[in-house]
Amino acid sequence: MARKTKVLPIYVLNGPNLNLLGTREPEVYGRMTLAEIGKAVAARAKAASLGVVFRQTNHEGEMIDWLQEARTKASGVILNGAGWTHTSVALLDACRMLDRPLIEVHLSNPYKREAYRRRSFVSEVADGVICGLRAQGYLFAIDAIAALLKDRNT
Amino acid sequence: MARKTKVLPIYVLNGPNLNLLGTREPEVYGRMTLAEIGKAVAARAKAASLGVVFRQTNHEGEMIDWLQEARTKASGVILNGAGWTHTSVALLDACRMLDRPLIEVHLSNPYKREAYRRRSFVSEVADGVICGLRAQGYLFAIDAIAALLKDRNT
Amino acid sequence: MARKTKVLPIYVLNGPNLNLLGTREPEVYGRMTLAEIGKAVAARAKAASLGVVFRQTNHEGEMIDWLQEARTKASGVILNGAGWTHTSVALLDACRMLDRPLIEVHLSNPYKREAYRRRSFVSEVADGVICGLRAQGYLFAIDAIAALLKDRNT
Amino acid sequence: MARKTKVLPIYVLNGPNLNLLGTREPEVYGRMTLAEIGKAVAARAKAASLGVVFRQTNHEGEMIDWLQEARTKASGVILNGAGWTHTSVALLDACRMLDRPLIEVHLSNPYKREAYRRRSFVSEVADGVICGLRAQGYLFAIDAIAALLKDRNT
Amino acid sequence: MARKTKVLPIYVLNGPNLNLLGTREPEVYGRMTLAEIGKAVAARAKAASLGVVFRQTNHEGEMIDWLQEARTKASGVILNGAGWTHTSVALLDACRMLDRPLIEVHLSNPYKREAYRRRSFVSEVADGVICGLRAQGYLFAIDAIAALLKDRNT
Amino acid sequence: MARKTKVLPIYVLNGPNLNLLGTREPEVYGRMTLAEIGKAVAARAKAASLGVVFRQTNHEGEMIDWLQEARTKASGVILNGAGWTHTSVALLDACRMLDRPLIEVHLSNPYKREAYRRRSFVSEVADGVICGLRAQGYLFAIDAIAALLKDRNT
Amino acid sequence: MARKTKVLPIYVLNGPNLNLLGTREPEVYGRMTLAEIGKAVAARAKAASLGVVFRQTNHEGEMIDWLQEARTKASGVILNGAGWTHTSVALLDACRMLDRPLIEVHLSNPYKREAYRRRSFVSEVADGVICGLRAQGYLFAIDAIAALLKDRNT
Amino acid sequence: MARKTKVLPIYVLNGPNLNLLGTREPEVYGRMTLAEIGKAVAARAKAASLGVVFRQTNHEGEMIDWLQEARTKASGVILNGAGWTHTSVALLDACRMLDRPLIEVHLSNPYKREAYRRRSFVSEVADGVICGLRAQGYLFAIDAIAALLKDRNT
Amino acid sequence: MARKTKVLPIYVLNGPNLNLLGTREPEVYGRMTLAEIGKAVAARAKAASLGVVFRQTNHEGEMIDWLQEARTKASGVILNGAGWTHTSVALLDACRMLDRPLIEVHLSNPYKREAYRRRSFVSEVADGVICGLRAQGYLFAIDAIAALLKDRNT
Amino acid sequence: MARKTKVLPIYVLNGPNLNLLGTREPEVYGRMTLAEIGKAVAARAKAASLGVVFRQTNHEGEMIDWLQEARTKASGVILNGAGWTHTSVALLDACRMLDRPLIEVHLSNPYKREAYRRRSFVSEVADGVICGLRAQGYLFAIDAIAALLKDRNT
Amino acid sequence: MARKTKVLPIYVLNGPNLNLLGTREPEVYGRMTLAEIGKAVAARAKAASLGVVFRQTNHEGEMIDWLQEARTKASGVILNGAGWTHTSVALLDACRMLDRPLIEVHLSNPYKREAYRRRSFVSEVADGVICGLRAQGYLFAIDAIAALLKDRNT
Amino acid sequence: MARKTKVLPIYVLNGPNLNLLGTREPEVYGRMTLAEIGKAVAARAKAASLGVVFRQTNHEGEMIDWLQEARTKASGVILNGAGWTHTSVALLDACRMLDRPLIEVHLSNPYKREAYRRRSFVSEVADGVICGLRAQGYLFAIDAIAALLKDRNT
Repeated sequence: MARKTKVLPIYVLNGPNLNLLGTREPEVYGRMTLAEIGKAVAARAKAASLGVVFRQTNHEGEMIDWLQEARTKASGVILNGAGWTHTSVALLDACRMLDRPLIEVHLSNPYKREAYRRRSFVSEVADGVICGLRAQGYLFAIDAIAALLKDRNT
Repeated sequence: MARKTKVLPIYVLNGPNLNLLGTREPEVYGRMTLAEIGKAVAARAKAASLGVVFRQTNHEGEMIDWLQEARTKASGVILNGAGWTHTSVALLDACRMLDRPLIEVHLSNPYKREAYRRRSFVSEVADGVICGLRAQGYLFAIDAIAALLKDRNT
Repeated sequence: MARKTKVLPIYVLNGPNLNLLGTREPEVYGRMTLAEIGKAVAARAKAASLGVVFRQTNHEGEMIDWLQEARTKASGVILNGAGWTHTSVALLDACRMLDRPLIEVHLSNPYKREAYRRRSFVSEVADGVICGLRAQGYLFAIDAIAALLKDRNT
Repeated sequence: MARKTKVLPIYVLNGPNLNLLGTREPEVYGRMTLAEIGKAVAARAKAASLGVVFRQTNHEGEMIDWLQEARTKASGVILNGAGWTHTSVALLDACRMLDRPLIEVHLSNPYKREAYRRRSFVSEVADGVICGLRAQGYLFAIDAIAALLKDRNT
Repeated sequence: MARKTKVLPIYVLNGPNLNLLGTREPEVYGRMTLAEIGKAVAARAKAASLGVVFRQTNHEGEMIDWLQEARTKASGVILNGAGWTHTSVALLDACRMLDRPLIEVHLSNPYKREAYRRRSFVSEVADGVICGLRAQGYLFAIDAIAALLKDRNT
Repeated sequence: MARKTKVLPIYVLNGPNLNLLGTREPEVYGRMTLAEIGKAVAARAKAASLGVVFRQTNHEGEMIDWLQEARTKASGVILNGAGWTHTSVALLDACRMLDRPLIEVHLSNPYKREAYRRRSFVSEVADGVICGLRAQGYLFAIDAIAALLKDRNT
Repeated sequence: MARKTKVLPIYVLNGPNLNLLGTREPEVYGRMTLAEIGKAVAARAKAASLGVVFRQTNHEGEMIDWLQEARTKASGVILNGAGWTHTSVALLDACRMLDRPLIEVHLSNPYKREAYRRRSFVSEVADGVICGLRAQGYLFAIDAIAALLKDRNT
Repeated sequence: MARKTKVLPIYVLNGPNLNLLGTREPEVYGRMTLAEIGKAVAARAKAASLGVVFRQTNHEGEMIDWLQEARTKASGVILNGAGWTHTSVALLDACRMLDRPLIEVHLSNPYKREAYRRRSFVSEVADGVICGLRAQGYLFAIDAIAALLKDRNT
Repeated sequence: MARKTKVLPIYVLNGPNLNLLGTREPEVYGRMTLAEIGKAVAARAKAASLGVVFRQTNHEGEMIDWLQEARTKASGVILNGAGWTHTSVALLDACRMLDRPLIEVHLSNPYKREAYRRRSFVSEVADGVICGLRAQGYLFAIDAIAALLKDRNT
Repeated sequence: MARKTKVLPIYVLNGPNLNLLGTREPEVYGRMTLAEIGKAVAARAKAASLGVVFRQTNHEGEMIDWLQEARTKASGVILNGAGWTHTSVALLDACRMLDRPLIEVHLSNPYKREAYRRRSFVSEVADGVICGLRAQGYLFAIDAIAALLKDRNT
Repeated sequence: MARKTKVLPIYVLNGPNLNLLGTREPEVYGRMTLAEIGKAVAARAKAASLGVVFRQTNHEGEMIDWLQEARTKASGVILNGAGWTHTSVALLDACRMLDRPLIEVHLSNPYKREAYRRRSFVSEVADGVICGLRAQGYLFAIDAIAALLKDRNT
Repeated sequence: MARKTKVLPIYVLNGPNLNLLGTREPEVYGRMTLAEIGKAVAARAKAASLGVVFRQTNHEGEMIDWLQEARTKASGVILNGAGWTHTSVALLDACRMLDRPLIEVHLSNPYKREAYRRRSFVSEVADGVICGLRAQGYLFAIDAIAALLKDRNT
């Protein structure tokens, strides 16, 4: 099984409004666009001999479809659930059904913001959580998954 | 009017992640796939001379569309809202606008699980609620709707 | 063991004020008296070759005694705890000590009523919960226990 | 119907620990024993040509039985639920099924005491509530029921 | 001292909107106007050889002035604080400074109404509380104060 | 009845501190003084052939008096309760007793401010609520009442 | 910039179940269908020399797409989020990213309804909120946006 | 008085479901039956020249009767209220009326269990509380009462 | 501007029931009457070349009027809001509109009293808070305002 | 392993302010000083052939050091965490890392005191809890640990 | 005893991070360093013929030691508990054991800050509380203690 | 300034019980000891030409001292506050006074654990938060600080 999961890509899934990244409130979210983050992520993964599937959606149902797809098509998942993070049990359930390393990433630190952003359903099932490190958080998440996969294979 | 509603099918609507049924945590959700449940449900309904429209979606909007459709196309609705059960006022509103018997079904018993699964928006408008009886819960729901329809026609 | 539990009856235990059934608020609880439900339940159980012990009490202690008795004398229990459902940890403890299938039944749907009726101690240990289907809920509970017993014997 | 209800007695039902009245904490509950209150109540009722059935129990089930009995045997009920006031939904349900005037009485004023005594399930269905007036509260309750009965008969 | 307090009148103080009594929602508050209640109260007090000062105000400050005045000019106070009951700490403080018997009266039973009507600041310092008995509640309050005064004088 | 209510003016009642409007925090409340708003409101009402009574008070009791007066003297009420909005049950009761169209207006949007400004007692009985539109909100409220009156007269 | 934003239309975006308007519970939501409201809105906007894009969706993702589109294609937004109002942080985030006047509209007054309808995520970022005025609320919202645009251009 | 209280036995009162001790979940409650605990307790008391009355009931009313009886017949009380511990104000009142040393005992440590087991009404009036030490907890309670009695007699 | 504010007096404003000071519960509030405190305050202010306007009212509206008056007539305000401290948003708003140093004073320490006295709306806008130091607290407040005024003038 | 743990002493660790024992509030905490308790504890342990290390500290860090030390140097721990009981997760973590019997002791009964003393972090990991029995509680704790050690060695 | 306490110094005890005073956020905490405050405090005390012991620590245990030391070595205590104010029951207990005047001081007004700064354990036992007056608050506290000591000696 | 901060080391500060790392619950916290993590961290920092000061303490006061020291001696801080994370406002204040990049690290994911671990005071001021990635989290934190420093220097 180790052989198989090695070659599967990492799914990097981005939730609602993240497509606007870089154009709004750069002091909060950074100046990189989502496309630029996607490229940086792919480069980082490549260094660890891993592929990346990088997607964004404003549709919760599509995100759930992708998380289900990841069950067989991905070696691990990096999820930035954005606004759904705090409200979607359906997303949580899709994450729980994943049998893959899962890292939750947020560009800004939600614990510095409104009270309703302090509750993350995703955190309850994620292996790791990285907040506030902007685009770099995605790169760390790639490394973390690479490390987790290596652990499982040894 | 009794004549008309008799011939309309029962809509059996399944929410997010239920398409994975049977392959994950069978000790919680049972070993039947959703397709198998669909067949059993159709058989049960047929015994009561009722048809069944059996669907699943990961998209909340689609579920709302179906519930609206059911207002004129169904004689009753069986709804397993899965994760939306606990979070969706939009779903609740769609249910409230139904003028049909509505039975809420859950395969497992959510009251034995996390606190956030104890609040069901659907329960506030459902005629009946059946939890924890796995696939059998759907069959009872068919019988319950059949009985409710018979009541209304007599 | 399968042989033994097969022949034990199902205990159907009814809590406070249910003896008044049929005479008060029929639009909420239905028009059947408790005695009539008892007969219907017995008939349904007989169809599954099961006996029924059908009782009602306004005394919590008596209910606890019956639940303890059911540990050795019953193959399964159907419990309508009425008002105790929401307040009695003692009842919960007695249910927890049962090593038998347990189905919770409510004639009306408590989730449509006052806030203090939304918390059920029984639900935390019941295998299944059926609400709002009036007398029919008891019949489904019989079938559910019959199915659970069959499962265990095979 | 007026004729019938006129001759039925008023049930005055006292809950747990009230049998100890007069011997403990007289500065809180007054110096009269429950028996002495019973006599005073009977005298007051007699003045209004009403009989009284005066009882006390430490058993919740017995209290529920009496409340059910009162549905056909009493013209009105005066209830001092003592400790059950704050915890018993079963008692509340029995009160709700009464189709008779119901006055809740407390010897002391529970709103001056612990927080858990500020919630009364009985108050949610009682016609009137009288607190803190010791034995006199019972006498006012008799008058109140007499007045309510007169209202209904005219 | 007994001699002095005997001859002082009972203050019967009515809070906001009670001047509209009798003209609005008679099924909740009864059909008597506040003036009619005032007359009945005076008659009842007279029977106990007590005078009555009967007032109403929509101004919280005026009510506090009256409660302060009552400290030296009244033998006891009957207070229907209406809406202030649930919100005014200033009123509570004025009541606490009274060194006179204090009976709280409500025409309807606030415990059957909205959640915010279940908290009474006045109840925390009142000797007695009478709810839901409409105008009759005032008469009982007169009797209760008469009894309390007699107690203190003997 | 339609004839009568037509000619009655609309009461526009303003609560505490609104007399300072225009001189403090114009970025929050706008630059118009209350007098200027009063004029604009009168003009708008006149266009709909309606008169206006425009008042402000820092005294809760006076506001309650005006609301009571409006029961017979006004065809509708526009209420900006300012700070009382969030705390006064007495005001709520006065509003509830109105049998006239009632529109609640706030110059700023209280839902963007402190948590204690998110609870409005007035909203629970108002026909409509308009927030954050500064002086314009009053004009819309005039139109809304005009429309409601027209509805009732047709 | 003033020139540009002037000619952009106002987006009027309607959330889940609003497509059923006029056919269900007219006493709550009014008798106009959504199409009829759309026409009235367009007429009102035209009077202010503004165009309107009027849409409805049951899909949260689609609504987010439209709100993002509005960032460059609309001069202002009128949002009736229906059930999502109370639950969707994703919607809130999309609104927050708008750099356009935003008016929240509700046909009925949610503050008179269930507790879970009293929390609006949209209200936390809207410039104005209009509730309970049915179709008329949309017309006022058009006027409010027209006024806000005029303010910005002067 | 010292002489008298010396010879009165200690009441050891056990609440609902404790009669099943030893047969269920021995890893939680230990392997001793209630009868065996009774013997060990009697032996321990005897060593301190004290008698023991050892009882169990599933009926709350019976427990209250016993606690009342203990007021004159016991020198001290050891109470394991089991499930009633967390819910019964009536039991609390009976305990409060005891004028005897009272030790609360629990076989397991309820603070390690469900949230609803963390609230003990009995703890609010007990002299001492011993949890989690299984049968040994009863023996310590005997010693504690013996010590308290000795203190009072010296 | 410094010249002007120097000569304006300090307003010392006292809320409901403080007129009774010295005559009730001296162990809580001290033995000085409000008049005596007024004199001591005036003397202290005089030592700092400041005048004092010292007032008390039981009418919230009057207090708001005074706070508004203080905006132009006072150099600073000392406010003992008594019971309104904990409940009045209207008072808070009036304080917020002050552009003067504001010191909140309480004779006793409300944090040692009932829970509802722990929330002060005034504290949210006051420059300083002094509790529990009885009359001396007023004198410190005078000094504090004197110091704040000196700071602003230098 | 049994041989080794037998000879290790029991650590009896006392938290902040317990060094003042015996000199303050003897009616609450008893008259024994901590040194006297230490002697009594040592004697009791000696009777069970066990040694005791008896310490007190006002420094949380020192207490954590000791609890860590106890992991290899003690056969069991008796912990009176005093004020830290209710607030220190760090202490809880140190306790959780102990692989030794742990008994929590409190001299008084915290459940009779302020609400913030009803939450014990230590109780969530302690084997047993003894409250309100003053110095005797320590002796019982010694016996309890002795018994637990004996259990593990047999 | 008066003679003795006179000559004992006042302990002025400062909690965590206060050693950084003057260098950080001067607009919140003022520009004086802690050493400068110490000097001003000593001068003020000297004027009242009192000595001062002025200390700061980041170690809670050291603060508790000092508070215990103050029981015999100080005539009164001024405590700025900084961050521990809101979290330390151990500190509260040490304060409660003081038999000396205790004044709580905060440089800024915590009631204007985060919600978790609104709860002060120290306030529950302090004689007086002074907030928001920066260094001047310490000087008032000296005066307040001097006055309290004078009261006790006369 | 850029030149100066470059050469200062990164402080890596570890809170209570982390000295036991590697020996307890390796499946939760990983198998590396704290010393091993220290080495890995130093190596990673060296690669970025940064030095590291790596410390652990069980004493909150010592941690606060270190954080204060870091204000002038460190270029950035990595903080694993362990149990203090959830309870210490004093720690939060020390962090807030840092004018350096601050990354919060947790070896395990606290959001998967007890409710009281979901509240982090440190998160409210940290630039970034990394949870659940065991030792690797520290390495990412080094990289994150290196990046933040580079950002500031460019």
